[in-house]
Amino acid sequence: MSVAELFHVPAKFELKDADASRKLIGSSTGQKSEDKQADKLQTTALAEQISGLQEVFAANHDHKLLVILQGMDTSGKDGTVKSVFGQLHPLGARTVAFKAPSQAEKDRDFLWRVHKEVPGKGEIVIFNRSHYEDVLISKVHGWIDDTECERRYVHIRDFERMLVETGTIVLKFFLHISNAEQKQRLEERLADPDKHWKFDMQDLAERVHWEAYQRAYERALTATDTREAPWYVVPSDSKTQRNLVIASIVDERLASLNLKYPPGNLEYSKLIVE
Amino acid sequence: MSVAELFHVPAKFELKDADASRKLIGSSTGQKSEDKQADKLQTTALAEQISGLQEVFAANHDHKLLVILQGMDTSGKDGTVKSVFGQLHPLGARTVAFKAPSQAEKDRDFLWRVHKEVPGKGEIVIFNRSHYEDVLISKVHGWIDDTECERRYVHIRDFERMLVETGTIVLKFFLHISNAEQKQRLEERLADPDKHWKFDMQDLAERVHWEAYQRAYERALTATDTREAPWYVVPSDSKTQRNLVIASIVDERLASLNLKYPPGNLEYSKLIVE
Repeated sequence: MSVAELFHVPAKFELKDADASRKLIGSSTGQKSEDKQADKLQTTALAEQISGLQEVFAANHDHKLLVILQGMDTSGKDGTVKSVFGQLHPLGARTVAFKAPSQAEKDRDFLWRVHKEVPGKGEIVIFNRSHYEDVLISKVHGWIDDTECERRYVHIRDFERMLVETGTIVLKFFLHISNAEQKQRLEERLADPDKHWKFDMQDLAERVHWEAYQRAYERALTATDTREAPWYVVPSDSKTQRNLVIASIVDERLASLNLKYPPGNLEYSKLIVE
Repeated sequence: MSVAELFHVPAKFELKDADASRKLIGSSTGQKSEDKQADKLQTTALAEQISGLQEVFAANHDHKLLVILQGMDTSGKDGTVKSVFGQLHPLGARTVAFKAPSQAEKDRDFLWRVHKEVPGKGEIVIFNRSHYEDVLISKVHGWIDDTECERRYVHIRDFERMLVETGTIVLKFFLHISNAEQKQRLEERLADPDKHWKFDMQDLAERVHWEAYQRAYERALTATDTREAPWYVVPSDSKTQRNLVIASIVDERLASLNLKYPPGNLEYSKLIVE
């Protein structure tokens, strides 16, 4: 069974705290710090492998890869970008973080700013947050009603299907942490002066809506998990497991393309002057 | 019957040369030059009316208007922009001409460059050519097969429906000229040194494919005429009729919104210092 199949969101599912620390792959010696060390080594190896696959991916100049990271505050989206995609060649890879929309963005459909940033041929783009915020935060805060939310699911499905049919691979990861883990991570930020800059009062305000967010995620993931653009639910209470799972799925998907370096045109190679 | 209904593309239709000079609205004194003069006066009045409607449209900052102009070479897309939309306030209106795609555009889906340019709230955008080129020129030259073409129709329908559902009015005009009229206009360009810059050898090369283009347009218009985003077939052998028809439909549509100026907030108006 592929790692992708192991973590593919089920047709019907509930987000349970317990599942945030579920361990399905990687070392299982039972020794926690040894487990982590093994996970890290495997992830580093995979990240290097992905970087190698990127070169042939770019050389082919054909497919496009879009990775979408979603998750509650502190779930580790930034950390994932660094650990899993940090080895990519910057010329062929970009990370785009979507924050609160600008006035020009608010004045247009919610897919506008997202479509602008999709990868070109041979490129890998990582979305740190995405158009899914528009069916999550907007839903939880009651800025849109259920009818509008359902309509946006359709817009998202149509949009992602179009991307896939025009040559984009779309991988969507939900970084699933438990309520207790988030509490601990927020406390860690407060305890460490070097992490104070990461602390945002807004995170506490959003934490109050924890349950509403879990329900909104369940509904959004179910409504937008498609054959073309699947959702993966990644247990993320352990950072090393989270990285290992995501790296494995990305590696699997890129490797499955079976890309070879294109032959190139060496007709004029003899013109190289000695 | 509204002008829009008069020119709305029928469910089944054929592009016939004769219909390019069909006269359904405007003066009909029978005197050709008098007819033209009457059309022009009406169009000017409508263009001014549209400009007035634009102000309240911008003030409301709610709806968006996208006008798409398609047609064979010399069918008068540029002339329409000048005559019908030339009076709009430039702050709230833009014309975007889509030429041969750049490398970055070729590297992405065909809707990418188009989505970027859609109007924001209160804005009017005119597309001089559009994403329809990707199911016309691409089809006629065999760059895409029928399956891909049908798939693109779906992408277009989904995309335009999304635009409409997020507050955009989409009006699509096909400027229908006859083969003989195109011949004459190309000859005029050659006869007048001040129009030589408009002459492009490529236009002659494309003219060879006239019949294939007519069939491709018939199919594209039928496949993408939707309740949300209708197609209008505008008889365009007469420039004045063409302008009058388009101005009438745009005017009707904007007027149908029944927009009023928003009340504004005058709470602090008393702070104006004498």
